[in-house]
Amino acid sequence: MKAIQDNYHAKFAHCYGCGPANPHGHKLKSYLVGDEVAARFTPAAMYSGGYPGNVYGGMIASLLDCHGTASAAAFAYRSLGRNMGDGLTSIRFVTASLKIDFKRPTPISTELVMVGTLRSLEGRKATITLTLSADGNTCALGEMLAVQIPDDHG
Amino acid sequence: MKAIQDNYHAKFAHCYGCGPANPHGHKLKSYLVGDEVAARFTPAAMYSGGYPGNVYGGMIASLLDCHGTASAAAFAYRSLGRNMGDGLTSIRFVTASLKIDFKRPTPISTELVMVGTLRSLEGRKATITLTLSADGNTCALGEMLAVQIPDDHG
Repeated sequence: MKAIQDNYHAKFAHCYGCGPANPHGHKLKSYLVGDEVAARFTPAAMYSGGYPGNVYGGMIASLLDCHGTASAAAFAYRSLGRNMGDGLTSIRFVTASLKIDFKRPTPISTELVMVGTLRSLEGRKATITLTLSADGNTCALGEMLAVQIPDDHG
Repeated sequence: MKAIQDNYHAKFAHCYGCGPANPHGHKLKSYLVGDEVAARFTPAAMYSGGYPGNVYGGMIASLLDCHGTASAAAFAYRSLGRNMGDGLTSIRFVTASLKIDFKRPTPISTELVMVGTLRSLEGRKATITLTLSADGNTCALGEMLAVQIPDDHG
């Protein structure tokens, strides 16, 4: 199963957080599964927060940001009845705003599970609800407004 | 002039984004200047967004997150009439929530300027308004609710 990010147009595939064309980055991979978009990622120990043993806030934001725009793209394909990689212009969203509520410390060197669900999709704007959990506990909640990049840029 | 992060208690100085004790991280340095807290940081080219030439969202969130908690600490010291490094228990905030509005693409390999201002400080809770700009243009706006770690943890 090909990840959403692996279907991004080459022009927009350089993101440090999730771009397959970025040799240095995290290469987050997100997948549409039923009505949700899911991703898994295990941050290395160096991505510590202030207190060792927890993930730093920037990593949590990075994961939710990349996962949110991938979720928006997947839901936009679905709403159009399209399949990713169908040969038409690929769909790519960018973040207009992202709010994160940090509910509890996020343990490091543990597999984190991100889930994106669609709250609304109107024209080029998608609102995505995000969760980040570890060991079954919700560590962070997010809400993103994402905007689709115009076709003539893709 | 010593950075706010360089006064964090050693126990809480491991953050990948700003901890002086993290050998791998970004080591953001924030300074109280008048009524504002300021920081400067130039992301390397690898921290690209989807489209090369712009900074990825996770880096912007990381910088604003670390700068926001540093700002909260600085304003809390000031409200108590204390100086950082005064030998008393050091003040350290963590993020409860962070909202970022991405106003325009943030250019990469360019010095970014982050500014934090205090909106409110009540008990252990601080609300911080954040801006991130490049070449004089505001690229992102943030609002953070930060909460002070209890003294017995420091």
